[in-house]
Amino acid sequence: MGRVTVRRSVVRVGPDGRRSRPDTLAAEEPLELRVGGRALAVTMRTPGHDVELAHGFLLTEGVIGGRADIAVARYCDGVDDEGRNTYNVLDVALAEGVPAPEVGVERNFYTTSSCGVCGKAALDAVRLKTRYSPAGDSSRVSVGTLSGLPDELQEKQKVFGSTGGLHAAGLFTSDGAALVVREDVGRHNAVDKVIGWAVQQELVPLAGKVLLVSGRASFELVQKAAMAGIPVLAAVSAPSSLAVSLAEEQGITLVGFLRGDTMNLYTRDERITG
Amino acid sequence: MGRVTVRRSVVRVGPDGRRSRPDTLAAEEPLELRVGGRALAVTMRTPGHDVELAHGFLLTEGVIGGRADIAVARYCDGVDDEGRNTYNVLDVALAEGVPAPEVGVERNFYTTSSCGVCGKAALDAVRLKTRYSPAGDSSRVSVGTLSGLPDELQEKQKVFGSTGGLHAAGLFTSDGAALVVREDVGRHNAVDKVIGWAVQQELVPLAGKVLLVSGRASFELVQKAAMAGIPVLAAVSAPSSLAVSLAEEQGITLVGFLRGDTMNLYTRDERITG
Repeated sequence: MGRVTVRRSVVRVGPDGRRSRPDTLAAEEPLELRVGGRALAVTMRTPGHDVELAHGFLLTEGVIGGRADIAVARYCDGVDDEGRNTYNVLDVALAEGVPAPEVGVERNFYTTSSCGVCGKAALDAVRLKTRYSPAGDSSRVSVGTLSGLPDELQEKQKVFGSTGGLHAAGLFTSDGAALVVREDVGRHNAVDKVIGWAVQQELVPLAGKVLLVSGRASFELVQKAAMAGIPVLAAVSAPSSLAVSLAEEQGITLVGFLRGDTMNLYTRDERITG
Repeated sequence: MGRVTVRRSVVRVGPDGRRSRPDTLAAEEPLELRVGGRALAVTMRTPGHDVELAHGFLLTEGVIGGRADIAVARYCDGVDDEGRNTYNVLDVALAEGVPAPEVGVERNFYTTSSCGVCGKAALDAVRLKTRYSPAGDSSRVSVGTLSGLPDELQEKQKVFGSTGGLHAAGLFTSDGAALVVREDVGRHNAVDKVIGWAVQQELVPLAGKVLLVSGRASFELVQKAAMAGIPVLAAVSAPSSLAVSLAEEQGITLVGFLRGDTMNLYTRDERITG
């Protein structure tokens, strides 16, 4: 628990030959998430902020609408071969009256009764689950503010600096103040931790906020922003086609290739000023 | 089907202001994989090479051991609202005598009867499933050969050049000849497509081959290499802690930060010469 990096010996090969030296790796461990004692999902994540991860995952999957929907989240007290708690199983008890999620193929996301699974079906599924649509969010973010966010994200990426192996996600106010930054070997986990932090702070829906991710913007990341009511999602790298389609449908401003003072605005560009 | 890119209008913001221009996006669409008519998994992938993807996924999940274990793979003939086949549902019929996979939480990978899920349990699960251990593979790859692979991978990344938004995986012989390169919005899908190609060519187990991935090396990617009998996995970026542990246990040479003539050898470095 809390072991976000692991030290190991590595053979470094370079122009001057090879030598053995210590190296720092980003930790990756499975986390099993249970709801009411029943296994819901296993994700490979970097240990730490697991309760946030659970809150964010359950919110972005539509199981909960806010902090009050969770009664308690605690680690199972199981131990490994050497008698240590692995802190890799988290059990969430939902508050009274909150329906337990169904468990099915790939997070029960798609209905599979016909041959018609397609991008449109995926968009429909999100629309049906969203509680906090950001479509009507009238906040504005300046180009100057956006330009500064990647550097701020990187500054706060403590573990990346030592391992080069972690994705990051950060939540910012519309004038660029950092609220929280999280890192993880899985990019969806980094976003779940950020959103879970906001759930715990009772800040959801995240009206007027900017979510920045260190890599690409996929359908799944736009879905998470939509579920949390975030009006602006910015990515350092490229978005996919379905990410842009979902952002358009959900009324999210999607920014890609955010590098220095250049960026691409794929949808709802009126929120970006200057 | 076959639509690997999508054209869209984008607002480009730069030092000279903003202007609208056409942009090319990497396509992302859901693929539902069925076995014997029963849904097994849904993955977000770039359309194209779906039959390879299915072969690779089923091999690396331990469902099949080779091409002969699949009788036929075909698209469902369902249509979308506009009467077009979405080519997003692929149904695989297993050959007689091949047991159908169980469907469960997260690909049925972990047993969840105790609180003891941990890195070790994940390693154990792979060991139980592996048919083609690369541990005894005595092939050698020179530093010079490895150094040239990232450039060759990038040259063959046709879609990345236009979108900047795709992961790539490539399979090479031990003297650096490219066998196949595939791109996808999902890094595990790119690897499944490469391995699925090899399954269809009846080249599995992939003794003496090098698998190169454009990003990081996670547990899941090392698992796929192990399942296909690949002795050398090289990544342009960092590996995670559990990726290194699994490579060590499975006897795979794991190369990270492969950039120019420098690289890190995490495990079984005797296979890399010069």
